Amino acid sequence: MILENIHSPADVKAVGREDIPLLASEIRQKLLETVSKNGGHLASNLCVVELTIALHRVFDSPKDKIIFDVGHQSYVHKLLTGRYEEFDTLRELGGISGFPRRDESVHDPFGTGHSSTSVSAAAGIAKADRLNGIDAFTVAVVGDGAFTGGMIYEALNNCADIDRLVIILNDNDMSISPNVGGMSRYFSKFRSSAKYFRFKHGVKRAFSHVPLLGKPLISAARGFKNALKRLLLSQNYFEQFGLSYYGPLDGNDEKHLEAVLEEAKNDGKCSVIHICTTKGKGYTPAEEHPDMFHGVSGFDIASGKIKSSGKESFSDRFGKLICDRAEKDGRIVCITAAMPDGTGTCGFAKRFPDRFFDVGIAEQHAATFACGLAAGGKLPVFAVYSTFMQRAYDQLLHDAAIQRLHVVFMLDRAGLVGSDGPTHHGIFDVSFSCAIPFVTVYSPDSFDSLEECFDKALKADGPVIIRYPKDSDPGDYGCEFSECGEVGVSDFGENVQFAVVTYGRMTKNAVEAAKIAAGAGIGTRVIRLVKISPLPFDDLKRALENINAVIIVEEGIKNGGIGERICAGFAQRGINKTFSVAAIDGVFPVHGSNSELFDIYGLSAEKIAGAIIKAAGDET
Amino acid sequence: MILENIHSPADVKAVGREDIPLLASEIRQKLLETVSKNGGHLASNLCVVELTIALHRVFDSPKDKIIFDVGHQSYVHKLLTGRYEEFDTLRELGGISGFPRRDESVHDPFGTGHSSTSVSAAAGIAKADRLNGIDAFTVAVVGDGAFTGGMIYEALNNCADIDRLVIILNDNDMSISPNVGGMSRYFSKFRSSAKYFRFKHGVKRAFSHVPLLGKPLISAARGFKNALKRLLLSQNYFEQFGLSYYGPLDGNDEKHLEAVLEEAKNDGKCSVIHICTTKGKGYTPAEEHPDMFHGVSGFDIASGKIKSSGKESFSDRFGKLICDRAEKDGRIVCITAAMPDGTGTCGFAKRFPDRFFDVGIAEQHAATFACGLAAGGKLPVFAVYSTFMQRAYDQLLHDAAIQRLHVVFMLDRAGLVGSDGPTHHGIFDVSFSCAIPFVTVYSPDSFDSLEECFDKALKADGPVIIRYPKDSDPGDYGCEFSECGEVGVSDFGENVQFAVVTYGRMTKNAVEAAKIAAGAGIGTRVIRLVKISPLPFDDLKRALENINAVIIVEEGIKNGGIGERICAGFAQRGINKTFSVAAIDGVFPVHGSNSELFDIYGLSAEKIAGAIIKAAGDET
Repeated sequence: MILENIHSPADVKAVGREDIPLLASEIRQKLLETVSKNGGHLASNLCVVELTIALHRVFDSPKDKIIFDVGHQSYVHKLLTGRYEEFDTLRELGGISGFPRRDESVHDPFGTGHSSTSVSAAAGIAKADRLNGIDAFTVAVVGDGAFTGGMIYEALNNCADIDRLVIILNDNDMSISPNVGGMSRYFSKFRSSAKYFRFKHGVKRAFSHVPLLGKPLISAARGFKNALKRLLLSQNYFEQFGLSYYGPLDGNDEKHLEAVLEEAKNDGKCSVIHICTTKGKGYTPAEEHPDMFHGVSGFDIASGKIKSSGKESFSDRFGKLICDRAEKDGRIVCITAAMPDGTGTCGFAKRFPDRFFDVGIAEQHAATFACGLAAGGKLPVFAVYSTFMQRAYDQLLHDAAIQRLHVVFMLDRAGLVGSDGPTHHGIFDVSFSCAIPFVTVYSPDSFDSLEECFDKALKADGPVIIRYPKDSDPGDYGCEFSECGEVGVSDFGENVQFAVVTYGRMTKNAVEAAKIAAGAGIGTRVIRLVKISPLPFDDLKRALENINAVIIVEEGIKNGGIGERICAGFAQRGINKTFSVAAIDGVFPVHGSNSELFDIYGLSAEKIAGAIIKAAGDET
Repeated sequence: MILENIHSPADVKAVGREDIPLLASEIRQKLLETVSKNGGHLASNLCVVELTIALHRVFDSPKDKIIFDVGHQSYVHKLLTGRYEEFDTLRELGGISGFPRRDESVHDPFGTGHSSTSVSAAAGIAKADRLNGIDAFTVAVVGDGAFTGGMIYEALNNCADIDRLVIILNDNDMSISPNVGGMSRYFSKFRSSAKYFRFKHGVKRAFSHVPLLGKPLISAARGFKNALKRLLLSQNYFEQFGLSYYGPLDGNDEKHLEAVLEEAKNDGKCSVIHICTTKGKGYTPAEEHPDMFHGVSGFDIASGKIKSSGKESFSDRFGKLICDRAEKDGRIVCITAAMPDGTGTCGFAKRFPDRFFDVGIAEQHAATFACGLAAGGKLPVFAVYSTFMQRAYDQLLHDAAIQRLHVVFMLDRAGLVGSDGPTHHGIFDVSFSCAIPFVTVYSPDSFDSLEECFDKALKADGPVIIRYPKDSDPGDYGCEFSECGEVGVSDFGENVQFAVVTYGRMTKNAVEAAKIAAGAGIGTRVIRLVKISPLPFDDLKRALENINAVIIVEEGIKNGGIGERICAGFAQRGINKTFSVAAIDGVFPVHGSNSELFDIYGLSAEKIAGAIIKAAGDET
């Protein structure tokens, strides 16, 4: 086996040319074994096997820096840079991260997770190297999807004078027909030859006159829904930015890739290498269903059958809800930023194609476009992950809130998201959205509550956020909540003097904790919030009458969270109680399973119960 | 006089063709009179006089919607849509806003303030109209500067299938020579004629073969520092997005503009009309120094002399500081997002051109580029307005904080900014930045403090934010602050039982308030914070020993601010005091002078003193 003997890029370089296909095959096998077991991103890694090998044969990491945009296609890079042995721990607590991490390896010069940051980061590193007199190369590997994010254009606009910066446009969604692909290989042979630069204009002219080359490419491009893709295929698009351009070429042809990378290296300018790869390459189920194998929770290698909890998720339920309400209310339209699957809106897209807008990885545009739709009298619902909503913070504030436009933001994946780790945990939305005037924020804990919140949101005025976890319905808590205005109250045990205030998914953990505490003889009240901004303070005050010690449990960042707001609210009203806040405090939570993370960050039922029992001890 | 009789767009349409130049001249006169007195944006409004007249003659506002990107060029539009009478109140409290506002007029369909939002908003409105079966047009007027912001590309990528959407690219910074401009008028004559569409290909061929037309345009483009501008001039750039393209044409030729706008209207598709205008058109001082007359605080019309307080600002002082420190430390580099003047970094740019990066209106790229520079071993300082940093929230969190990269963010215009109003007040940075782990935040109150903070920031580890107001040094407070750890303490009057805790510019108001309170016999302590995150809580606790009633004064949003954090901190430590927080609470502050706003939002010395005196009454 070749792969197990590769401990650094030098070992990749030492592999004989004839053994490259074998190495590629071993890598694919390892990817399949690991991702089928641990879950993670498969299709995008399968397609960059040859590219990553070529990069490590042509460039010298860590002196040369390779940055992977989004980073979910960095597994091959990890396997080739000394992380093969630990690769079985992928996405597990304490194990290899599913994304590049500066603290994981010197071969990860810049961490990623959110889309379209890599060219900016690479430009910064390359510029620093130039200023420091270091002659290293910086490479950014960017998928075509990331080119729907505006930040890439901000970066491209600032790259022209940065030497030794190589941008790989990894185009795995263009469905270029084999014929056209073949012709483009022919074309790229010209471009990657040293002669090309001398005969550039001649070649260009030739290109436009060879029908098999020019026309099929262009007609293939016409078929794309995405106008940007048409643009990227435009011959001189990147050259207009002042960058050298190579391609499009076959990105699964390792030998050819090496030749073109060498050429770009010799060129020494900022260059764009446009490669076309097949998502899921080498594993038929993934080639046939790349979307299903983009991010998977695990699967059976032989059958290609994907593991699934089989449980309906909050996303699924929202998907049903919006279809039902849209049937009755023609104003409702739905927007997603490249996440129809993840946000459960595929059904809506099919049923109401005219009222559905997938705008690409473009959260900023999505939010303001939604505001425009609202200004035009529609009722827009933007379904987006909590962590990606961070990208549209200014648009939420400046376009939705200042104008009090009625837009509903459905924040999926709110709270901890387990194995995806720090770049993806949705733990900041409460802090940033509750601070903005005129924004109503709901955090339902169950499907029933989700439905209630959604209906309130549709009837509201101004922007409304509904945040919910990547999870299924918590089921029966084994207790009843009585209503105290907008606040739910449930008592456990006798002589109740302690209370846990919480919202969203933590309600379940709080109830379990209260049961444990009650079992230990400590009567505990659980207070469930659903509307968290503006806070129903008077109801909360009533619910906390005769309670001395309050623990506020929050699956989010402590600073700026609801816990602090409640403490501050009571302090300003001159009501003295003993408060403690259990929340994520001053750290970015690591990756691992949610149950592990709940335990680490003090949010498990046991840890909350421990906090109640400790508080009871302090009181006596 | 024609202008005073124009009360609506219908009146604009009724003006005889021969009177248009007179109307344009009257508008320019009115702009000069008002802006010279009230301050505001001049150069950008002078250049769109003809465009705005043409828009109102061709389109039917409010049925057709006109959205101005950034919005500082909307004054002419305001004058022509029934706001002439009130125009003297421009930017004054209760008067006409310096930006479009939905609540000001039905002719302002979408408010703006931050760059590059207009196409997204216009796309939303146009799409809503299509879905609602309304055949209106939506027009977005976008300056070329806004094309350096990535959000525009996200929007362009989603416009192709939206009919009746007209995007005006107002290009007032291209310095196309008169010759080239003349030729391009010749060209646009072709394009704007009905025949053009039939003979499009013929014309294109002709264009590329007429040296005076094609070549000078291209060579002019070569001179631009900005690669995007080269791109925008590329003939088929917008057509690649699937949009119809007209131009470039003379944007100060009203008659010609009308013809082209009519053509785009007849076309009915999403189209881009690329016009070239002269910034400051018609007022020589502004034509000669468009940057100086971009945003002015007032000027003498006859001499063109700009009014200035003559006082050194925080921006000026920072500009000197960074030059001085950069002289000694070669790692220091400086980044601005199109604001070298505003952020005081012009001097640095001149002195250290290789270490200065103006990336355009591209805060997202700026922040991540800075992180890349830090990863490459440089010490990047990103100078940006507080309100525009909102655009880079995710980059601060995802690229700087998670990776603990040492980037210094200098947040200028923190706090209230007076006449620019709600879209520009820097009142959210404390709330959003203090919530992010590993970010250190300083809020200096004086030049000396700014210097201290800057030096600490340069020596720090991880991201540091320094926020300071659009103001000058407060001068001598007439009191001494004694140090209590990281907290400053100054007592006023006898028998001190009350305290005001504050930071930044509010320190001055707090001191004055304490003097008033002391004069009324209420001994008051002023506690000044400089480092506001992480909070020096133990120092604060010591400084508040023996104090029962605490007023926390904050020139920022209350939710998620320092006031709440202090209240929560004491509550969680079981220390009971009476707290109140004077801050911006649940509203977006209006426009007006800062002293008026301080009074309205309870932040003036008098209002703070009133709060102390009230608290004293409550206590007794």
